[in-house]
Amino acid sequence: MSPQVTFHPKGRSIDVPAGTSLLEAAILAGVEVNSACAGKGVCGRCRVVVEGDVETKASPKISQEEWASGYRLACLSKVQGDCVVFVPEESQLKPMQIVGGKVSTELKELSPLVRAVYAKLRPPTLHDNDADLERLLKELGYEPGSLEVPLSLLKRLPQVIRDGEWTVTAFLDGDLLVDVRPWNCVSRNFGVAIDIGTTTVALQLVDLGTGEMISQVSDYNRQLMYGEDVLARIMYGEDHGQDRLQHMIIDTINHLLARVCSYDEKCAGKGKKVCAEEVMAVSVAGNTTMMHMLLGLDPRFIRYSPYTPVTNLSPSTNAAEIGLNVNPRASVHLVPGRASYVGGDVIADVVASGMARSEGISLLIDVGTNGEVVLGNQDWLLACSASAGPAFEGGEVCHGMRAGDGAIEKVSLQGGVQYSTIGRTRPKGICGSGLIDLLAQMFLTGVLDKKGHLQPSDRVREGEFGKEYVLVYSKDAEKDGYDLKATGMTCCPMDKVERRRDITVTEEDIANVIRTKASIFAAAEVLLDTAGISFADLERVYIAGGFGHHIDLDNAVAIGLLPDLPRERFTFLGNASLDGAKLCLLSKEKREEALAAHRAMTYVELSTDQRFFDRFSSASFLPHTDLNRFPSIGRIRE
Amino acid sequence: MSPQVTFHPKGRSIDVPAGTSLLEAAILAGVEVNSACAGKGVCGRCRVVVEGDVETKASPKISQEEWASGYRLACLSKVQGDCVVFVPEESQLKPMQIVGGKVSTELKELSPLVRAVYAKLRPPTLHDNDADLERLLKELGYEPGSLEVPLSLLKRLPQVIRDGEWTVTAFLDGDLLVDVRPWNCVSRNFGVAIDIGTTTVALQLVDLGTGEMISQVSDYNRQLMYGEDVLARIMYGEDHGQDRLQHMIIDTINHLLARVCSYDEKCAGKGKKVCAEEVMAVSVAGNTTMMHMLLGLDPRFIRYSPYTPVTNLSPSTNAAEIGLNVNPRASVHLVPGRASYVGGDVIADVVASGMARSEGISLLIDVGTNGEVVLGNQDWLLACSASAGPAFEGGEVCHGMRAGDGAIEKVSLQGGVQYSTIGRTRPKGICGSGLIDLLAQMFLTGVLDKKGHLQPSDRVREGEFGKEYVLVYSKDAEKDGYDLKATGMTCCPMDKVERRRDITVTEEDIANVIRTKASIFAAAEVLLDTAGISFADLERVYIAGGFGHHIDLDNAVAIGLLPDLPRERFTFLGNASLDGAKLCLLSKEKREEALAAHRAMTYVELSTDQRFFDRFSSASFLPHTDLNRFPSIGRIRE
Repeated sequence: MSPQVTFHPKGRSIDVPAGTSLLEAAILAGVEVNSACAGKGVCGRCRVVVEGDVETKASPKISQEEWASGYRLACLSKVQGDCVVFVPEESQLKPMQIVGGKVSTELKELSPLVRAVYAKLRPPTLHDNDADLERLLKELGYEPGSLEVPLSLLKRLPQVIRDGEWTVTAFLDGDLLVDVRPWNCVSRNFGVAIDIGTTTVALQLVDLGTGEMISQVSDYNRQLMYGEDVLARIMYGEDHGQDRLQHMIIDTINHLLARVCSYDEKCAGKGKKVCAEEVMAVSVAGNTTMMHMLLGLDPRFIRYSPYTPVTNLSPSTNAAEIGLNVNPRASVHLVPGRASYVGGDVIADVVASGMARSEGISLLIDVGTNGEVVLGNQDWLLACSASAGPAFEGGEVCHGMRAGDGAIEKVSLQGGVQYSTIGRTRPKGICGSGLIDLLAQMFLTGVLDKKGHLQPSDRVREGEFGKEYVLVYSKDAEKDGYDLKATGMTCCPMDKVERRRDITVTEEDIANVIRTKASIFAAAEVLLDTAGISFADLERVYIAGGFGHHIDLDNAVAIGLLPDLPRERFTFLGNASLDGAKLCLLSKEKREEALAAHRAMTYVELSTDQRFFDRFSSASFLPHTDLNRFPSIGRIRE
Repeated sequence: MSPQVTFHPKGRSIDVPAGTSLLEAAILAGVEVNSACAGKGVCGRCRVVVEGDVETKASPKISQEEWASGYRLACLSKVQGDCVVFVPEESQLKPMQIVGGKVSTELKELSPLVRAVYAKLRPPTLHDNDADLERLLKELGYEPGSLEVPLSLLKRLPQVIRDGEWTVTAFLDGDLLVDVRPWNCVSRNFGVAIDIGTTTVALQLVDLGTGEMISQVSDYNRQLMYGEDVLARIMYGEDHGQDRLQHMIIDTINHLLARVCSYDEKCAGKGKKVCAEEVMAVSVAGNTTMMHMLLGLDPRFIRYSPYTPVTNLSPSTNAAEIGLNVNPRASVHLVPGRASYVGGDVIADVVASGMARSEGISLLIDVGTNGEVVLGNQDWLLACSASAGPAFEGGEVCHGMRAGDGAIEKVSLQGGVQYSTIGRTRPKGICGSGLIDLLAQMFLTGVLDKKGHLQPSDRVREGEFGKEYVLVYSKDAEKDGYDLKATGMTCCPMDKVERRRDITVTEEDIANVIRTKASIFAAAEVLLDTAGISFADLERVYIAGGFGHHIDLDNAVAIGLLPDLPRERFTFLGNASLDGAKLCLLSKEKREEALAAHRAMTYVELSTDQRFFDRFSSASFLPHTDLNRFPSIGRIRE
């Protein structure tokens, strides 16, 4: 008999052959376990607590105390006999909190990707026996041969027209007929905007007739199992086939669609529930690798110099061809990108910010798993990728986490340690905005020197991974009365061990955060230098990304992530990529703006730019080698 | 054990469940047997000679003598035990003789449906790392977003570009990228033109770079098993599903393609053999029902008043979508039609004739399984369907046959019976041109009166189906020394019975031919009447269709099929539909001309037109009630 593995808190059991890794068993059981290194035992994200017959290897990612409590890495543990596995919340891939877009651009008029047109046809007679399609074309005002009609639609046309008793709604994407449906009192027409991040996928269902947002959902990108960054995933694809990666991203989106749509065609046209068949348009923004994987394009050459994608443009495709569960002929539009490491997500940011319509020069910083910077105005755009690393999204930091329930998002050390968590639940880790606050506050209160070294303090101790600062003692967190039941977690005996962990930040964590902020700052400086201007010339600075619900500008300036400009010049956009995708879904002008941005944008390659390395070195301090560039911080420190 | 059925002359055996009809068994065994009524026992086309355990019904289509010799209808015979079946040549569906196009229109310049463009790309560098597609677009002179690129092609693009070491051939259909191939010394680019007749399918392989015809093949439409005319096939589809009909037409074309192409990709670009992958464009002409079946469109409404097709226009499709075995992304262009019974084959005739480019008014008659008439010039076109019936293609006539080996194609009764057969083989039946000659000659020599009644003569006798004229006595045919081996037929003992049949024409046959010619003549008169002109106003009369290799104009006028005009005004086009398809394959101007003809053409519905019935009655004589309309015939008869 095959060994049985049971996963908690989901309570799912599965029989697997002996020798299967717990990570593989979890995938087979449909239990999503975090993993950022494709099962190589490197990232330490797949920590689980195990009881039973498992052969496992030790890992520096598991402390001695944790090991004694049953903590193991799922990828390094092979099933030998029956066992029970608890997946702690930190290792789960779960629906995450949405950080909504902050920009509401006023659209002059709606010109959605797919428009619905009511058409009342004359029923044919012996003396007016034009073909069904020609009858429709005439009513829609198209000359014969000037409208593209997919064969699959043509096959259904005679029945649809007769079902509608010669009154139909036609759905048009430019000169392409997307669908024809019998007319049901109102012409319902829906679309979805999707932002595919390396880490998170967010989706909005939108009424294309009114522009109104109906619902918004998001989830982790299920590809996370195969690696945390794009390079890890491309490598995984080279070894195991790209199909699996395409499947996982489509699967992620289809799960999100299932949460906002019904698959019961009977509900179409009735009531408030939107039927998947009524979704006629899909607008997607994402980085170049994600777009390749969504379309099933080979991303191999993105990895190797000179880093050429297959394309940065949107191909002609529809939902059925890539496997999205909406109307099979729904138009799929991808926001165009510019280069392998400046993708459609960045151009969507540009569209959402409006910077390419302004006379004044703006800087846009997108701090995602990577980190991209754009500089320019209505006449020109420069862009680069900072290869910043995922520190502000919770990566490469021991107690780092994404902006979800339990993430510490605000920290103040003025007059004692104070913090607040997202969802007001028991603290589980620190998200981007919390890290910015923490580093800034440690630096301003003297706990941290400008090189990022911890100074002696009652909260600084020698931990397993070197010097560390304790932000939250587990006993204090308990005292705060955060209740497991209140957080919605299933209570499991094994969970107790989780509560024993203090939330700390090590010197290595701090070094990683400094590296990330330094590379973003240096990237911005190289673009300014290329344009021959300085920070002071900037009319606006836009900040996009998933740090958290907000960002404390003073603290972000204090660590040298943002330039020391008057604070009113900054705008925090939140998930601007999703906003940009939605604008492109709703407006032809915005789709043209995106294409114009693709054309106008000059990509600056930093990987061979000596200026970047020089400026990165100078910026690898708190806030910077040259304190004159941060006068407001210098004043506080004095 | 299941009974075994063996079919000769193919020598194929198959085990089938008891109760299977011989027609079904033949289909299962891959033996093609003629059938025109979808197995209802009505048409009498599936005559076979049987020995063995078969339960069968009598049929008026089998004479007593034939019954005694073992003749049965395959559709009415159910297998009970082992049996041997001989399929006589008349009942076989075999590759048939080609009646090639007679028009060679001079094209001002080649502008094929798909053009090949050589493109030498700059290899990317770190400072010029545009995406693969964008690099190609730039070289081809396309702005980003202005060229449609199928996703399936985009998936192959990076490898193809690198296989070609940055030198490729791009294949373009307007603003659609059809394929990209590594550049192999020459840009080979091929297309096929196809004429899909209800009875016959003809195909030409063409070099799109030079316009040169490489090879030409034709075959019976394999749908013949499911009925002889379009209505029988639509009905068959309603009962058994349209899929089967689509499958059979695609199957017919793919068999023809296999005769002109190689499926070994290794041969691509080398030598003279054309690889299927190198065929980038397909241009098809056919009647409206055939076009529906080719595309898998529902032809149901073609059958019922007011006779509306799904469309008369070419949809956006490619070879893979409909299942043609050429390059999967090859563009498929259908010559547009005008109505349910005036299809793309007729508009292809118009294009081949050039009548829509002429100032003078022309009449075009296409005598196929149906029969269509077009009248007009560069400013206007009128068209109608004559519902003429298949008499001139060998249908509805006892010894009628298509224009293939052994068909009597010329007859003269002046100074004794003289005839010649296609391929100079033993006479097997009479094709269209032979029937025209025979009736005219019988009429002119007084064997036939103007009502179509046979007059006493040494060759007129009372046959099983009433009065009949014997054109060929079997004993004479034997005496002529026609040798079975010379005709390529497999010799089989059962075949002897075949030779015993005289070739005759009955009064019922004659009535069918008169009905056919009368309806074509009446249709032409209605169009002239609608335009307010007379035959004398015609600058030219074009005759298209599969009568045979030629048509004797005097005889065609003598029976009243053609108007009595100076003979130099007539042009015999042969298979003009195939010519038209080829012109559309090679020339944008011709494709536009076809679309312009679709727009300019007014369809005249005859089924409810009293003028048509009046004129049909008057024309149902030899040559016509009003002899003044045929002065040259009146002179001969006097």
